[in-house]
This record gives sequence, structure tokens and C-alpha cells, in this order.
Amino acid sequence: MGTLCLRSIPGLPEVQPGADLAELISSHAGELREGSIVAIAHKIVSKAEGAFVDLRHVLPSARAHELAADGGAVRTQRPPVKSSRANDASGAEDAPPKDPRAVQVVLDQASEVLRAERGVIVCRTHHGFVCANAGVDASNSADPNTVIVLPRDPDASARRIRARLRELSGAQVAVLITDSFGRAWRHGQCDVALGCAGLTPLDDWRGRCDSAGRELRATWIAVADAIAAAAELVRAKDSHEPVAIVEGLERFVTAEDGPGATALMRPPAEDLFL
Amino acid sequence: MGTLCLRSIPGLPEVQPGADLAELISSHAGELREGSIVAIAHKIVSKAEGAFVDLRHVLPSARAHELAADGGAVRTQRPPVKSSRANDASGAEDAPPKDPRAVQVVLDQASEVLRAERGVIVCRTHHGFVCANAGVDASNSADPNTVIVLPRDPDASARRIRARLRELSGAQVAVLITDSFGRAWRHGQCDVALGCAGLTPLDDWRGRCDSAGRELRATWIAVADAIAAAAELVRAKDSHEPVAIVEGLERFVTAEDGPGATALMRPPAEDLFL
Repeated sequence: MGTLCLRSIPGLPEVQPGADLAELISSHAGELREGSIVAIAHKIVSKAEGAFVDLRHVLPSARAHELAADGGAVRTQRPPVKSSRANDASGAEDAPPKDPRAVQVVLDQASEVLRAERGVIVCRTHHGFVCANAGVDASNSADPNTVIVLPRDPDASARRIRARLRELSGAQVAVLITDSFGRAWRHGQCDVALGCAGLTPLDDWRGRCDSAGRELRATWIAVADAIAAAAELVRAKDSHEPVAIVEGLERFVTAEDGPGATALMRPPAEDLFL
Repeated sequence: MGTLCLRSIPGLPEVQPGADLAELISSHAGELREGSIVAIAHKIVSKAEGAFVDLRHVLPSARAHELAADGGAVRTQRPPVKSSRANDASGAEDAPPKDPRAVQVVLDQASEVLRAERGVIVCRTHHGFVCANAGVDASNSADPNTVIVLPRDPDASARRIRARLRELSGAQVAVLITDSFGRAWRHGQCDVALGCAGLTPLDDWRGRCDSAGRELRATWIAVADAIAAAAELVRAKDSHEPVAIVEGLERFVTAEDGPGATALMRPPAEDLFL
């Protein structure tokens, strides 16, 4: 019988640029067991790495102005909302304020704009991720004049954090860096893997057999994405719990850092779903 | 601190048409606690509901013959593979045998064919799901002449199983029916929700605030899909473990059956990711 347990880490302080994330995690996580997976919301990785952009230093291009005027803008931060709307779970979202500077940051993070409509710019990022607003986000930013961008190389970030966790705890864990992405065809967001180290990102059953000896068809499980989605379920959005510890998936934890989450990117030319 | 635990149910027998799934589950699951979520791979739901098609009774259309000849076919079952290839995890998949009858079943299950290439027909099913081969599958079928199709109305199936589990165990649980779907832009498959009952499928944080009082942006979590992905991680593909029990998400379990997984379907006209 398989079992899988996830727990969030309470009490992490606000992460500052330059913070030693592995130290923060290992000092708050309790015992880190060999073969655990440490799933980290990318925002604190971005914060620790200083992956912010100060909007006061951004000069929006004509294209950014045009997209912002069209509503294709990321929402920039507003003062704390204490109105009744704060508890409104109706799902109705106001049109976001348009800030051409934030749109410029989105364009700077994108290698390709796939669609811009209704306040969302769907981009392929310079890493190759397809997501809304190139992952640029103003929520949870400590400073209203800054937006947070994705880590420059999330697999490298994961490798660094993993090495440091090993140094501090002695345990060989895997590290997974996650973000919430919207999807085609389905409402809502699921967390996916932006980066990982020491984790098998894809479990390949193609050509292997099931319990009756029948060959399994097209079974290639996106393990890293599934773990990201699971980790999201234990982390409360409204309390600082950006880290989850996953136990019970030791079979996917490897001695080597491995190919990282880059292995999950499907080249556009191979994409039958588009 | 949040915790989430998942366990698979060992020892379930091969499911036969007409089987009382809830009875099988409750007799093998140990104690079912109030507020647990029972995640079930759709195949055993399809089997219990007799959602098979006997290929010997299928007359393929000209279109099915054409797609099969083009390689746009589902693989039909082969005899058990005992060659060295069975352990080949290289990821290389042979071109599947082409069976125009199986292709016809795919076409019958589809409301729209979005793409047909390299042995895969990406369809929108009559339910509205976008997936490869309209969910038609020959693996794990007990009879080499049959293919398994998706349950006709997975939300209704979930409601029935839920009601019966309550009858048998006394506990109010949620029921989730899952399948593995490929995705756009990313390699591998993740399990998603085909149907659910007693579960909040989407957790809407839009308009709510984070711990610092800042409004959260575009945060609308596909809870049912995340649970499906998590459940996949505890169920071994090669041993009959099609059911997982999820504890720790009682906040998403509702007294009412609720909107089901239908709520997760994004109408094509609203889809910015396409």
C-alpha cells in the first residue's frame, strides 16, 4: 500500500533579497528525512534572488502602452482592500488597473506573446514556460512599486537550494520550485514545476506492463507537476506557508540532480495539443 | 500547519460490469473518515458501468479507415509483452498497431476532432473534455476485443458512488473520478477530475487578501484537478490500486453534491490559452 504525506512549514518569516532560503527552511521544517521532497513556491525563491523589477525604473514602450490601453495589463498592487469585496468569493474579478510599466516587464520576460486579451497576456517566457503575464506578479510583493518575476533559471535555483539543504541537514532531499499556471480547456490554476533537482520529473511507463502483463499505452507521468499540484493543497494562500515537505515519494528522489523541470517542456513542434 | 495524507487501497479485485464499486471500496479501504476524499481511476468506474465497446461489433467508417491508415489510431491490445522492451524506459514508443474499429470508437466518443497525428487523435469528447483518443483505452481491459470508454456522465457516477458509500460506511466523503490527460506545452500526463461529488472543484481566492492584506490576483485553484494529480502519485500503475483515500482536505468536502467536475470545463470562447 502506498502512502504519501505532505505538510506545510509554518512560521517562515518574510523572505528578503539575499536570504539563505535553505537555512530558513531547515530551521523551520523540523527533521528533513532522506528522500523527502521540499516543494517551494517560486515567489520566495524570486525574493531571495532579488528577482524583482522596480516599476519606477521601467520605461514602457509604445507596445506596452497599447497593450495596457487594451486591457492587456498585469494588475499592479493596490492598497490593502478592506471592503466587503475582500470576502466576496463570487469569482467576479474587477478589471485590473492598467499599468504600462508592468506590461513592459511582462514583455521583457516573454520570448513570445501568444495572446493578449481581457487583462491577461499569455506568453512564452524566456525559459519556455507558457503562462499568463509571463509569470510577473504583484501580489505578495513587499513593495508596491515592485513586481516579482520568475527566477532566471529555476533548475539552477533548485540545485543550489538542494546542495545547501544537504550541507545543513545532512539529508539528501529533492527540491521542487513551483508556480500556479492556468491551463488550456480547463478553469482554474494548478501548480506546476518550474525547476527541480534530485527529482525524476517524468515517470516513463511506456513499453512497461501492467499487473496482467498487458503493455501500458501512453503512460508517461508528469511526476514533478503532480507533486507541485499536491503541494499547493497544503499551503494556505493567505498565511505565509510557501514551503511543503512531501514524504512517501522516495522512489522519485535521485542522487544526481538530474535533468530538472526543463525536461517537462514540450517543444512547440511536437505539441499535438495545440 | 496543514497536513495532507493519501493512501492507496490494496487488494481490490478485478472489477466486473455491474460491480458495486462502493461496496468493494468500503470493504477494502479500512475506516472511511468523515470528510475524506475517495479518488477513483475512471477505468474501474467504466468497467463497473459496462462502458466498454466490443470491437467485433464496430463497423468503421471511411473516415476511421483513413485516420487509421494515417497513423491516427488508438493502439488496440496486444498479447502480453515479455521481451526486453518491456523494461525499456527509454521513452521511445513503437508506432501503435492501427485498428480502424478502435478509431471509429474514438470518433463516436468525440464531439470534435482537434488534431490527428502520430497515432494520437486529440478530441473534444461529448462531455467537453479535451484529451487524446477521446479517452478510449485498451490497456487494462480484461478482454482483448474490447476498449474502455469514459463513463457517460462522470459527475453522476460520482454522486451515485458517494451516496452508496454513505449508506455503507455512514461517513460523508467526497468522491472524485480521475483520468490521465496530456497537456498543451508540457510533456507527460497529469490526472485530472472527470467527475466529482461533495467536493469544491475550484477554490476561488479572487478578491480575497493575502496575509499582508494585499488582494490576491487571479488565484482560482483547480482543487479537484490538484487532488486527482496527487492521488495518481500513490497509485501504482502496475498493481491494481485504482483507488486512493485523501485525508486533510475536509475544508473542500461539502454536504451537497455540488457542481461536479463540469465546473472545471472552460468554454472554448473564454479560453485565452488557445
